[in-house]
Amino acid sequence: MTADPSLPLSSAADLDPDYEAPEPRTGISDRAATQQAREQQVGQRPGTLTIREGSLRPRLFLISYSSSFFTEQEYDSYDELLHYFQANPQLKHWLDVRGYNDLGLIQRLMQDFGIHALHMEDVLGDYQRAKVDVFDEDRLFLVSRMTDFTSSLEIDDDQLSLVTGDNFVVSFQDDYDDCLDSVRNRLRSGFSMIRHKPPLYLAYALTDVVLDHYYPTMAAIGDYIEILEDRIFNGRPNRRLLSRILQIKKDIVRFRRLVYPEREKIAEILRMPDQVIPEEIKVYFKDCYDHAIQAMDLAESYRESISSLMDLYLSDQSNRMNEVMKVLTIISSIFIPLSFVVGLYGMNFQRENPNGTINHLNMPELYEPWGYPALLGLLAVIVAGQLIYFYRKGWLTNR
Amino acid sequence: MTADPSLPLSSAADLDPDYEAPEPRTGISDRAATQQAREQQVGQRPGTLTIREGSLRPRLFLISYSSSFFTEQEYDSYDELLHYFQANPQLKHWLDVRGYNDLGLIQRLMQDFGIHALHMEDVLGDYQRAKVDVFDEDRLFLVSRMTDFTSSLEIDDDQLSLVTGDNFVVSFQDDYDDCLDSVRNRLRSGFSMIRHKPPLYLAYALTDVVLDHYYPTMAAIGDYIEILEDRIFNGRPNRRLLSRILQIKKDIVRFRRLVYPEREKIAEILRMPDQVIPEEIKVYFKDCYDHAIQAMDLAESYRESISSLMDLYLSDQSNRMNEVMKVLTIISSIFIPLSFVVGLYGMNFQRENPNGTINHLNMPELYEPWGYPALLGLLAVIVAGQLIYFYRKGWLTNR
Amino acid sequence: MTADPSLPLSSAADLDPDYEAPEPRTGISDRAATQQAREQQVGQRPGTLTIREGSLRPRLFLISYSSSFFTEQEYDSYDELLHYFQANPQLKHWLDVRGYNDLGLIQRLMQDFGIHALHMEDVLGDYQRAKVDVFDEDRLFLVSRMTDFTSSLEIDDDQLSLVTGDNFVVSFQDDYDDCLDSVRNRLRSGFSMIRHKPPLYLAYALTDVVLDHYYPTMAAIGDYIEILEDRIFNGRPNRRLLSRILQIKKDIVRFRRLVYPEREKIAEILRMPDQVIPEEIKVYFKDCYDHAIQAMDLAESYRESISSLMDLYLSDQSNRMNEVMKVLTIISSIFIPLSFVVGLYGMNFQRENPNGTINHLNMPELYEPWGYPALLGLLAVIVAGQLIYFYRKGWLTNR
Amino acid sequence: MTADPSLPLSSAADLDPDYEAPEPRTGISDRAATQQAREQQVGQRPGTLTIREGSLRPRLFLISYSSSFFTEQEYDSYDELLHYFQANPQLKHWLDVRGYNDLGLIQRLMQDFGIHALHMEDVLGDYQRAKVDVFDEDRLFLVSRMTDFTSSLEIDDDQLSLVTGDNFVVSFQDDYDDCLDSVRNRLRSGFSMIRHKPPLYLAYALTDVVLDHYYPTMAAIGDYIEILEDRIFNGRPNRRLLSRILQIKKDIVRFRRLVYPEREKIAEILRMPDQVIPEEIKVYFKDCYDHAIQAMDLAESYRESISSLMDLYLSDQSNRMNEVMKVLTIISSIFIPLSFVVGLYGMNFQRENPNGTINHLNMPELYEPWGYPALLGLLAVIVAGQLIYFYRKGWLTNR
Amino acid sequence: MTADPSLPLSSAADLDPDYEAPEPRTGISDRAATQQAREQQVGQRPGTLTIREGSLRPRLFLISYSSSFFTEQEYDSYDELLHYFQANPQLKHWLDVRGYNDLGLIQRLMQDFGIHALHMEDVLGDYQRAKVDVFDEDRLFLVSRMTDFTSSLEIDDDQLSLVTGDNFVVSFQDDYDDCLDSVRNRLRSGFSMIRHKPPLYLAYALTDVVLDHYYPTMAAIGDYIEILEDRIFNGRPNRRLLSRILQIKKDIVRFRRLVYPEREKIAEILRMPDQVIPEEIKVYFKDCYDHAIQAMDLAESYRESISSLMDLYLSDQSNRMNEVMKVLTIISSIFIPLSFVVGLYGMNFQRENPNGTINHLNMPELYEPWGYPALLGLLAVIVAGQLIYFYRKGWLTNR
Repeated sequence: MTADPSLPLSSAADLDPDYEAPEPRTGISDRAATQQAREQQVGQRPGTLTIREGSLRPRLFLISYSSSFFTEQEYDSYDELLHYFQANPQLKHWLDVRGYNDLGLIQRLMQDFGIHALHMEDVLGDYQRAKVDVFDEDRLFLVSRMTDFTSSLEIDDDQLSLVTGDNFVVSFQDDYDDCLDSVRNRLRSGFSMIRHKPPLYLAYALTDVVLDHYYPTMAAIGDYIEILEDRIFNGRPNRRLLSRILQIKKDIVRFRRLVYPEREKIAEILRMPDQVIPEEIKVYFKDCYDHAIQAMDLAESYRESISSLMDLYLSDQSNRMNEVMKVLTIISSIFIPLSFVVGLYGMNFQRENPNGTINHLNMPELYEPWGYPALLGLLAVIVAGQLIYFYRKGWLTNR
Repeated sequence: MTADPSLPLSSAADLDPDYEAPEPRTGISDRAATQQAREQQVGQRPGTLTIREGSLRPRLFLISYSSSFFTEQEYDSYDELLHYFQANPQLKHWLDVRGYNDLGLIQRLMQDFGIHALHMEDVLGDYQRAKVDVFDEDRLFLVSRMTDFTSSLEIDDDQLSLVTGDNFVVSFQDDYDDCLDSVRNRLRSGFSMIRHKPPLYLAYALTDVVLDHYYPTMAAIGDYIEILEDRIFNGRPNRRLLSRILQIKKDIVRFRRLVYPEREKIAEILRMPDQVIPEEIKVYFKDCYDHAIQAMDLAESYRESISSLMDLYLSDQSNRMNEVMKVLTIISSIFIPLSFVVGLYGMNFQRENPNGTINHLNMPELYEPWGYPALLGLLAVIVAGQLIYFYRKGWLTNR
Repeated sequence: MTADPSLPLSSAADLDPDYEAPEPRTGISDRAATQQAREQQVGQRPGTLTIREGSLRPRLFLISYSSSFFTEQEYDSYDELLHYFQANPQLKHWLDVRGYNDLGLIQRLMQDFGIHALHMEDVLGDYQRAKVDVFDEDRLFLVSRMTDFTSSLEIDDDQLSLVTGDNFVVSFQDDYDDCLDSVRNRLRSGFSMIRHKPPLYLAYALTDVVLDHYYPTMAAIGDYIEILEDRIFNGRPNRRLLSRILQIKKDIVRFRRLVYPEREKIAEILRMPDQVIPEEIKVYFKDCYDHAIQAMDLAESYRESISSLMDLYLSDQSNRMNEVMKVLTIISSIFIPLSFVVGLYGMNFQRENPNGTINHLNMPELYEPWGYPALLGLLAVIVAGQLIYFYRKGWLTNR
Repeated sequence: MTADPSLPLSSAADLDPDYEAPEPRTGISDRAATQQAREQQVGQRPGTLTIREGSLRPRLFLISYSSSFFTEQEYDSYDELLHYFQANPQLKHWLDVRGYNDLGLIQRLMQDFGIHALHMEDVLGDYQRAKVDVFDEDRLFLVSRMTDFTSSLEIDDDQLSLVTGDNFVVSFQDDYDDCLDSVRNRLRSGFSMIRHKPPLYLAYALTDVVLDHYYPTMAAIGDYIEILEDRIFNGRPNRRLLSRILQIKKDIVRFRRLVYPEREKIAEILRMPDQVIPEEIKVYFKDCYDHAIQAMDLAESYRESISSLMDLYLSDQSNRMNEVMKVLTIISSIFIPLSFVVGLYGMNFQRENPNGTINHLNMPELYEPWGYPALLGLLAVIVAGQLIYFYRKGWLTNR
Repeated sequence: MTADPSLPLSSAADLDPDYEAPEPRTGISDRAATQQAREQQVGQRPGTLTIREGSLRPRLFLISYSSSFFTEQEYDSYDELLHYFQANPQLKHWLDVRGYNDLGLIQRLMQDFGIHALHMEDVLGDYQRAKVDVFDEDRLFLVSRMTDFTSSLEIDDDQLSLVTGDNFVVSFQDDYDDCLDSVRNRLRSGFSMIRHKPPLYLAYALTDVVLDHYYPTMAAIGDYIEILEDRIFNGRPNRRLLSRILQIKKDIVRFRRLVYPEREKIAEILRMPDQVIPEEIKVYFKDCYDHAIQAMDLAESYRESISSLMDLYLSDQSNRMNEVMKVLTIISSIFIPLSFVVGLYGMNFQRENPNGTINHLNMPELYEPWGYPALLGLLAVIVAGQLIYFYRKGWLTNR
């Protein structure tokens, strides 16, 4: 997923709309959705766990902490990890599972940490909207979606699943990199509230950091919208631009579809009874809720901007047609009458002499010495008249 | 209905948008809806059962099972089937009725399995939205709609009606092929949870497999959207393409109208008291609910894609007009002035000699030796000037 | 109102879109609504009953029945009718009032059958949305709207008002023909459930038959949409077609506005306590509710079709412009340059002989023997070049 | 406000769309809203009453009545009025205040009739949506908006505020004319229910008559829509027409914004406990509610009509462009090739005689005696061919 | 923020749409939203207070008052202020903090006035929707957004945060100028209700004055819409105009997004139990609620106006194209046929004399003495015929 939250947000802003290499083949159809639809068809039998293709080899990280103690380690052996976990019930633990490609391990995790089969199916499955489930009276199963704005202008989203317990949180993700480092750093620092609060607070902190990550994604989209706007205002709008506008529009719609269940999830948490979520934790989730609503607001705002860009694009397209037509009309209107006039004096009406010879054309004006200059003058008058007419109509000034 | 869920989803993806044979005559009006409207008018008197025309001859399949026992058989005689069913009250039974064309049989089924007349009317009727009814305190009547994306780009949907009882489920469908084979195979395998759970779980499994089948339908539509998109991006958008875009749009709207009541149905099940649906079964229906919501999400996403395709199509149409106009304008603007100039020197202004003969044209430049080359030069300058002007305007580069 | 439900639905389907006689003057403004707005202004004082102009002379029909008894008669004298009604309290009665044009009679009806003045005002008034009111604890006042698709492509709707009592139903309509014959026939047949159930069931049956009549209306609209679609696909879309598309769109909107309150009405009935509507009757109204929802679905589906037709129409309009432009561009682009070339060799640049005579034009190529054939060849090359260019652009093939 | 409900609705229907004098300067921006926004800024401190500029000098009318008694009088002196009011507690009173321009009087009214300062602020303020407030346990403060369709095609709306008491209703309006005469006449007649019911019924009657007045307003708009439609169908749509369509659309939107709170107000009244509004009065307000919903329906229906008119207008605009292009294309396509052909035979390719003289043009066909007639024939063939082509395309027939 | 509410609203109304200096670079993308998205990413860890860059040096104002006492002072030293505050518990205090740039001070304020860390984070944060939180049983944390319509046509909004206590209100804003002077003046005057009511009433008064300030903002937008409308009606619509229309549209959308949470906030206050907000204060907030709804109504109304302006703009764009095409068509249609005719008589069909000389052109009409005048007449007839045709079509009159 996204590399490092401390990195400047330049990646998307630097994107040149004409840069093409890694972008999606076409850009409009929701290929992520199609992919989702295709993969959803397998593994739907409840209770059957299947590891989806391309899943990573699992890596296991265990952070164990209390107010005064902190240790973190990556374990190669699950048994060792479990032994340490079971030997230290007085500590709070964060078991961080990255990669699912070991069905046996997954099944042991389910057993040892009391995870429901349907929840494990959601973890392993391809796509699960943000949601929360209560089980075993006061334990939570939480799904969040972590977003990223890729260099190919698409919203990339990965799943973070959390299972809470009395003295632990298990997190699942199918990625080695994640956006949770700020939480780890806060834990390491020792001053963090997380160290002093129950594991539910860690679950909150992880949920919150995912929500916070929506803002850089949105900022990147916002920057890109400004680039597109500059393009439309300064350069010549073209079809690739339109396709990018539509791509960003799709991203925003997709983002909204991601954030909306997140908001619902947190609203559901806020409605839970106090024995599941104590009031002191709810206060923090209420803060999350505000953030989720503001992310929705942002998306709404960008949606409006994109829709205005579309209007402008289409109006420009029409304007350009107008301009083309004006050039054609001006040039045709000036020269077609002139062509008629000079054609007139190219006719061959003749007068037959008595002797059968033909000397004179039968068009008296052709013989006047001033005929030719007068004609040129006439042509000039016609041109001038038309230019004045077009100028008055404002067709000669630029638009 | 759809043949086999294990088949590759190639059928729709292989479809060439120019392939025409089996497609609907025109493609936009909702002929399925019209058909529905027309057929709805008969057989509406409550309590009157009528077999609609074209219904199949009934075939009766009985699967009887318990945790440790399994048998399945197609019966030619309803009496034999009923005898076996009544003789084995300790087993759980799935009576699978395919085809309705025997009113007497239908009426016996109603009586022997305690099915309400209004429910039977829904079974036999032409079209019933997904719904659930509780009757006799704790029995369920469930209607699901099974979808398929046909090679003529239409969403085909058939009805599956379920009636639950203490130790049985009766399923009705007017088709010999269905999408329920995966459930049958799970039953046969012996390891399935269905064997160990009450018949309600079988009803859940059948409902779930129908829901799962929405994903291949959606994937086929998604693939087709990508084909359409490629067409628009690479080929020349034409009217047939538009008609197909509109057809797919209609399909998506139709799909949404199918899935929405499905979601409502499951939500209603989740709200039912525990004596009707035990908590342990509700957990599974909750999973169904997630799937239904995600299917709606997918449809929403495709709808956006189609709408973007429409925008692109219309913008392209406008672009093509622009291009045509530019060709016209460039050629006219260059050659109409040239025509004027050459017409000018085709005029016959003449000078009469004193002797009455006419030798000279009264246009001095015509007699300059450099006249003709100079004119050709002038013409070249005019052409070059215009080409530069048009190049600067960007009309010579492709769009 | 509509003649006979058994009639084939051909009337609308036979309609030729070019047939003009009885259609609305213009077809788009909602004249029915305007009419309604105008008439609503009178007779609004509560408690004042006014017969609206054009109301029919009342005809009184009384059907009296029990499980084992049936009689029907049209009475010329209200006193006789009332006498029969009061003399037979053991029977169930359906008093069918058609035409309101007798204020005295209306007031006697109110008194004898205990009808509320405000309800009577709704009966007599010009337009009342479908609704249900409970009065006198357990009596119902029901308004339904009966629809018809007229040959002038409009949705015609008439009002059916029902008042229930202990052993009677009074129905009011301002029309001699109606769509209730199927109910009458069922009553006459003797086998109908209506004969065995309380009058409330008759009210249900009448409400249901009105709902059932929405389907032929919708089927007629659906057929007409298909006709319009064929027109657009095969013939040349023109403005009359557009006006008809808009008319059908208006009809569908109107239909939705008619059906929506119907659905609300039935939903309200379903929410009523059991002492007003017993559970055994509610089951049937639940069936009605499904029908109402499906009628809404149908309307929604047609609305989408019409919207797609509009898109297609507008795109075709644009396409036709494109085609016109292409013809202009091809012909102009080919012939304007040719005209220039032949104009070039029509110029009179001349060479003065030493003796003052002029023999030669000063354009050497004019004297080459191969000049003329070469020029013709050049012209052919220009034409061929342009044709190849236009062919490559796809402008020569039909769209 | 509006003059007399019995007047024919001809004013708007007579309006010629080309008549210009009193219409709004431009017609689209919501100047009423802007005005409202500007005036809202003053006088917002709660408890501070300010008379807005242009308010009328107050006139005080008192109608006192009981079942058997009726008197009405305009009082010049508030003291006399108050004396009569206080001296007759057994009568019901309607104090009708028209014009606010006397702050002292207003403050005495507040005190003597127990009106809340915030309510008085709403009375005096510039604009208050329809609303209802309960105060002092069972007294009501009601605001209604009276509409009128002016000759400048705008919806004019004035405010009617009502305060109820035990034995009185105070009505406030800043206008000498109003639409309440029908209520006054009913009171005078002696047969009206108002005379027999509590003052709350008078409040109902006043609210109802305002609602009834929405129908003439809507009818006027409906008539105007038909005029616009005729214009579009028969005459030549032009820009003024568009501006009027947009004005009417704005009116309808405005009307909806007026009626919607009215409906909300009545719904709130219906939800009030019986000690505030007795059931016998609620029945009448329920009737009001139906009217309000039907007014909304009407507005919806007109909105659809206007939207169809817009579609037709835009399609016509496009059609006219099409027609212009067709004329251009037909004439250009016919004459440009002809010009080329005649230009061809105007070229000067010549043959040099051995003696250096030039006699013959080097284009043999020019010397054939049938050359000229053949050429004319060729031209005729070209013209005929093109005409046939265009006829087949349907470009020669009118659209 | 905005300078002085008593200033005339001329600033925006004076704006010339062609005036360019301080306007946003492009004008459509929601740069404020992008900015918000970018800044949101920092400082999100709950409990961590960070002062955002550019924050002002804090200034502290304390207004202390009771019914009979009033004093106000700006304190340089927080200790002095705190001492005065703590020494006078019998007074009500309004502590007005402007500028946040002193983390130490902020933390002391939190401690001394009992402000929650999460609330303080909202105060310091970049953007917080209007909201209300209850804490410590009966204390309120309120956020309002103060709007302003800038000369660059953007809606500028600043945040006002309020914290209530038993005998004080603390207000926070990051600006030295504000729109609260009218409240200060009311306090100073001594007659204000604020002096006599609890601090909650002051919180209401501050919330209300912010809401009141929405009206001048809206009035400025309304004025600008009228300017735009005049432009479209009188001048020539151009692209800058479109960009401004889109900018105003964005402003209105933004305004709606600002006001909507404000309305929600007040609705939430109205739902609070009486021990938090006493009924006597709620009456005033109810008034606020009406204002908020009316502000939303206004925004809705302007939105419609803008949408109509867009329709008019696009229709005008199309009209102008139409006009261009008509000029082209008229001139081409007249002169292209004329050119053909004169070209015809410029051909060189010749007759060879027996003696090999060529005298006559083989086109008899060329030798008729009336040939030339007749031809001129013919040309005049062609021109006249076309002019009549175009006049009849209405193309010669202006539109």
